[in-house]
Amino acid sequence: CSVRQTESAYRYRDIVVKKQDGFTYILLSTKSSENNALNPEVMKEIQSALATAASDDSKLVLLGAVGSAFCCGLDFLYFIRRLADDRKKESIKMAETIRTFVNTFIQFKKPIVAAVNGPALGLGAALLPLCDVVWANEKAWFQTPYMLCGQTPDGCSSFTFPRIMGLASANELLLGGRKLTAQEACSKGLVSQVLWPGTFTQEVMLRVKELVAVDSQVLQESKALMRSTSRSALEQANERECEALKRVWGSLQGTDSILQYLQKRTELC
Amino acid sequence: CSVRQTESAYRYRDIVVKKQDGFTYILLSTKSSENNALNPEVMKEIQSALATAASDDSKLVLLGAVGSAFCCGLDFLYFIRRLADDRKKESIKMAETIRTFVNTFIQFKKPIVAAVNGPALGLGAALLPLCDVVWANEKAWFQTPYMLCGQTPDGCSSFTFPRIMGLASANELLLGGRKLTAQEACSKGLVSQVLWPGTFTQEVMLRVKELVAVDSQVLQESKALMRSTSRSALEQANERECEALKRVWGSLQGTDSILQYLQKRTELC
Amino acid sequence: CSVRQTESAYRYRDIVVKKQDGFTYILLSTKSSENNALNPEVMKEIQSALATAASDDSKLVLLGAVGSAFCCGLDFLYFIRRLADDRKKESIKMAETIRTFVNTFIQFKKPIVAAVNGPALGLGAALLPLCDVVWANEKAWFQTPYMLCGQTPDGCSSFTFPRIMGLASANELLLGGRKLTAQEACSKGLVSQVLWPGTFTQEVMLRVKELVAVDSQVLQESKALMRSTSRSALEQANERECEALKRVWGSLQGTDSILQYLQKRTELC
Repeated sequence: CSVRQTESAYRYRDIVVKKQDGFTYILLSTKSSENNALNPEVMKEIQSALATAASDDSKLVLLGAVGSAFCCGLDFLYFIRRLADDRKKESIKMAETIRTFVNTFIQFKKPIVAAVNGPALGLGAALLPLCDVVWANEKAWFQTPYMLCGQTPDGCSSFTFPRIMGLASANELLLGGRKLTAQEACSKGLVSQVLWPGTFTQEVMLRVKELVAVDSQVLQESKALMRSTSRSALEQANERECEALKRVWGSLQGTDSILQYLQKRTELC
Repeated sequence: CSVRQTESAYRYRDIVVKKQDGFTYILLSTKSSENNALNPEVMKEIQSALATAASDDSKLVLLGAVGSAFCCGLDFLYFIRRLADDRKKESIKMAETIRTFVNTFIQFKKPIVAAVNGPALGLGAALLPLCDVVWANEKAWFQTPYMLCGQTPDGCSSFTFPRIMGLASANELLLGGRKLTAQEACSKGLVSQVLWPGTFTQEVMLRVKELVAVDSQVLQESKALMRSTSRSALEQANERECEALKRVWGSLQGTDSILQYLQKRTELC
Repeated sequence: CSVRQTESAYRYRDIVVKKQDGFTYILLSTKSSENNALNPEVMKEIQSALATAASDDSKLVLLGAVGSAFCCGLDFLYFIRRLADDRKKESIKMAETIRTFVNTFIQFKKPIVAAVNGPALGLGAALLPLCDVVWANEKAWFQTPYMLCGQTPDGCSSFTFPRIMGLASANELLLGGRKLTAQEACSKGLVSQVLWPGTFTQEVMLRVKELVAVDSQVLQESKALMRSTSRSALEQANERECEALKRVWGSLQGTDSILQYLQKRTELC
């Protein structure tokens, strides 16, 4: 175990991967972006860590983050530099990267537990319904301000959000960009339970240990049962969303909207 | 714009249509029925206004109402007069009118924002999940008393209500006819947010202006993404509901139930 | 009516069946198991009573229980004795029994109202989304501790729970085994309404009488509308869950997990 931990420290730059007793702990801790924002390099590291956890003896994956933010969604600073180069070509490339990344979550066969320590924005919030259990620190908050940056929804949120909470609530988040507290996110069904800040990590670990005590066949069969009807619908939603992003980003207006958003926002997250 | 407003004043009797900056404002204000109840004439005017908004430069439609009620559902006084004439023929005609009206909402490509100022009953409440955002005045209330008038659900509520809130809650409304406050409707997912009575219209206008600031392609792509999986399911639900209404209204018992309901109810809404 | 009641007293051992004015009242009152736990004999009696109610003039079925518990799920004491005999053969037989029992609920055409007087566990809780209306005593509580007994979900809960409350909440119950109060179950959409303990049965009877006043064609058409899109999905979910149970129970580990669970638990329910 300590060998693997050391090994992972060499292999990854933007995430920390700890192989623990019965599970793999993946922590976002980005160097190439701020506030754990997702660029292609961060996404590839997460995919690689998930691939390892899929094939080793891990019963589940715990996904958390180092620092005060969980994940601030797409790294727009990175994307805008690319779009400035060759808008058409780069928007296709970006959308494909996101498609592959999101499909990795859709197709992952072992339970994924998300421990949301702080703000989860955009794709960082959209990923949560693709996880199986979501425990949130009481200080965490959730926002999908797609319209503010002239972007269409990603991470299957156009499919999962209306399914979970109905269209009226989903659009309050996806069109209106409304910010949710952890408690609100819990009552809307995005979060399984809200835990106290002081003991957040300990509480998460206690609960993960309970899950890891379950037979791995039972865990995987249960996940398969719960996902069986939605998997292809999720893949199709992901496909449609990425096609829409190509069209939006491929337009001059799409790039302008991101630029305006980056100039307007006062904080990075 | 002022020309259009004047023009619309001539064209419509039961609704007021205001073409505003970036959106079309449709207000129920029925002369041919009480409390904005829906008869074929009201429905045709709404359809016509939606058709205009679909093809002009409106980015979205805001649907509200003049007076203290939002919409009290079907105009049973109108329908019972027709059913008394030729039950079989008229029940088919009525169901077809409803089917076309509901399909207009299902197939509308731009976002529809509902501003629910007061009571929304029957079809007036069932339409809300076919809109995209629903803001309710804190004084509004919601009820689908289909069983009380011996009627089966309409407006796709037999499909949307269980999807949004689960069957146990949906049947409390659709079978049990339970009345919901605006807050309850919000926590069940029928309403996006509840706004204070004193500043209701201003708050709605502020929020609509924020939505209208979004690029129209992004708005339409987002709506298309969110509706893509449910459109044909909604059309089928509408079809099934209208077939059931034909059977129910076509029976002597069906007509009697409406008569009894009209006699029993103390208020019109 | 009194003849039928007497007749039923002879025919059933584990349930009480009362033919009442317009509906059939089925009460769990098991002699062959403790706390209304479900073994093949109890399940067969319920199926038989439902078959009678399906073909007579009952407009709906009211499902309740005698004693302090509603239904504690599968009768593991019974099952473990069987599994000890011939694990492979008996696990198939058990799963088939459950499949048929659950399909009876999925395919029942008249409304089923559940009156949950006390704890509902495992299959006893999973059955509730297959009913149409669920009224719960404020003292009732709900738990699906499948993982604690090394079992995969049953009663279509792997399909219905995520649909009703989203995956994050569903897994808190199905993977985490979290206990819900009646109020919590209501806010998550498993329960239609919570009623006060002191007047629970009277309140249920009052409401059932209101439903029974509705025309039976309207009741059945309404149920058919609400179930039309989900029936085959439910049958498939039931099928998949029972196949998973065969695999889990057919393994040595599966049997061991049930034994450990039976030894650990301090109370029967």
